[in-house]
Amino acid sequence: MVQYVGVGNVIELVRSTGIETFLLGLVDYIEEDFRRWEQFEKAPRVASHSTSGVIELMPTSDGELYGFKYVNGHPKNPNDGLQTVTAFGVLSDVSTGYPCLVSEMTLMTGLRTAATSALAAKYLARKDARTMAIIGLGAQSEFQALAFHALLGIKKLRVYDIDPAATAKFRDNLADTDIEIVVGETAEDAVSGADIITTVTADKRNATILSDNMVGAGVHINAVGGDCPGKTELQGEILRRADVFVEFPEQTRIEGEIQQMEADFPVTELWQVMTGGAAGRRSDAQITIFDSVGFATEDFSALRYLRDAVQGTSFFTELDLTTQPKDPRNLYGLFRQPAPVAPLAVLEGSFA
Amino acid sequence: MVQYVGVGNVIELVRSTGIETFLLGLVDYIEEDFRRWEQFEKAPRVASHSTSGVIELMPTSDGELYGFKYVNGHPKNPNDGLQTVTAFGVLSDVSTGYPCLVSEMTLMTGLRTAATSALAAKYLARKDARTMAIIGLGAQSEFQALAFHALLGIKKLRVYDIDPAATAKFRDNLADTDIEIVVGETAEDAVSGADIITTVTADKRNATILSDNMVGAGVHINAVGGDCPGKTELQGEILRRADVFVEFPEQTRIEGEIQQMEADFPVTELWQVMTGGAAGRRSDAQITIFDSVGFATEDFSALRYLRDAVQGTSFFTELDLTTQPKDPRNLYGLFRQPAPVAPLAVLEGSFA
Repeated sequence: MVQYVGVGNVIELVRSTGIETFLLGLVDYIEEDFRRWEQFEKAPRVASHSTSGVIELMPTSDGELYGFKYVNGHPKNPNDGLQTVTAFGVLSDVSTGYPCLVSEMTLMTGLRTAATSALAAKYLARKDARTMAIIGLGAQSEFQALAFHALLGIKKLRVYDIDPAATAKFRDNLADTDIEIVVGETAEDAVSGADIITTVTADKRNATILSDNMVGAGVHINAVGGDCPGKTELQGEILRRADVFVEFPEQTRIEGEIQQMEADFPVTELWQVMTGGAAGRRSDAQITIFDSVGFATEDFSALRYLRDAVQGTSFFTELDLTTQPKDPRNLYGLFRQPAPVAPLAVLEGSFA
Repeated sequence: MVQYVGVGNVIELVRSTGIETFLLGLVDYIEEDFRRWEQFEKAPRVASHSTSGVIELMPTSDGELYGFKYVNGHPKNPNDGLQTVTAFGVLSDVSTGYPCLVSEMTLMTGLRTAATSALAAKYLARKDARTMAIIGLGAQSEFQALAFHALLGIKKLRVYDIDPAATAKFRDNLADTDIEIVVGETAEDAVSGADIITTVTADKRNATILSDNMVGAGVHINAVGGDCPGKTELQGEILRRADVFVEFPEQTRIEGEIQQMEADFPVTELWQVMTGGAAGRRSDAQITIFDSVGFATEDFSALRYLRDAVQGTSFFTELDLTTQPKDPRNLYGLFRQPAPVAPLAVLEGSFA
């Protein structure tokens, strides 16, 4: 049997754990996997493009576990009340090839993206950073706020969104926390005086959410929204003044902010900062940028965390997604036995 | 919600339909998709190799539906009571990117492989073919026997396996059919006088299951077992005497019997035979070979068939694999609502 963690169970698990505690646990798994970066098989995404969007498979493996995420991106979905991005993931045992976990990953992607941002900021933001600006208050914004609150103690937010309804949603969602929220009149107003700037807007275009004059010395920019070809948020000049840190350069040069720059624009890999192979922040005046696009290993970490987190709990069910006849050569024999009555019942001799 | 068809439900569906009726329905879907071959996006498999085996993702799309199969191949699994190959698949709506069906595909792959073989033989075997030899009585053998029985009326089988236990299993599994089974003393004995020869052995090596002198004029060879690099069943000389038909040449030249031959060895694509663009069998004396390796479109057809077959039945359940908050930007809001009590309950506002 394969363990299944659906949307309902992820919600229950996160609520029972506490979302900030859950995010901190997730940060640990992501950091652990970044630190053993070289163990991972890093394959390109496999994309199927259509006029309405893209469907991608993102596989990776550490030699013991294999994981992949299915994720779509359909910009017009919200017009029909659907989400732009949905995702699910699978974790398998490399030694047998048998899947062991199937999970929703729409919520988990929201959580792992924020956890990765906070983790990067732990290495790249000034230690005395206290205020974060968030530009763009869409689906990812609360996760970012809570991850930075949990990991770095950020309690002061300066926020901006072009849509007042998004701002109201954001404030309402965080009303029961001790996070102080100041709403800027403009993006420029919001970033004023912030130690960390998170850009996480949704428009799929080469936008200028942050222009060069808005970014002062010592700031850490957590650039989350620029994450696919044709979608950027930062003016190129900022990138030249800053040190840019990335997950997987081959992917970020296509999908990240640095798609604007020349092919050999210098970047530092985040895993090397974590293992001590490269410097993170070197001075209080330095501008650092985490050019986040989201990489398969982060989904792998999220699946691995989820698998461990649900053991011994009631927050999963089981799927009869694999067969195991007593004689592997007698697959046909499964059709001759009485079929199980309950749809999710354990088949005699099936993989436990 | 996403429909889920597990092993138990596939067994129930096939049993309630009747396996031969089910196979005939599957043949129709596979043929329909072969006939619109050019509509499909044909991508290479995405393979992750390890010392113990391989895990592959096989995606395809017809522009309306997207499907992929996860499949592993671990030759030593049977030593631990596990199957060499397990599989599952997903079908999605291209216009939204939302998955609509998750299904087991270990059983379905067994069924679709046999259905494809019988379909190919409909075009390639002599119309008066009455006797089929099967060399190799492993997990795929009964499916082959039943598909040829259902589609072509083959009621006489001459069979051989090096393991008497496999032969006994095969006879026992087909005891309640009107198929007459003659067990050969050798492979050569079994193929003697057969109109169709199915080779479906399991050893991963370049074997000589059929040597040139065993194949007479007019025979159709259904070469199923040679399906990955380093695994073949036919002596190369047979391929030179025959006309060879394949699914997707780019893949078959790597995985099929023709991996033994030069890179420009002439082959005919099966879809072109079905659409009339190329000749199938041209004379009673011709030797034809279907060099079967299994292609992603066949899995797509199987998923599409399964999706249609379960509608209006009780042979599926639902998974909460996708979210749909009332406001797509308020993903975080899902954590603030009371979580659903039942693990598989429909979330308020979730994708129906």
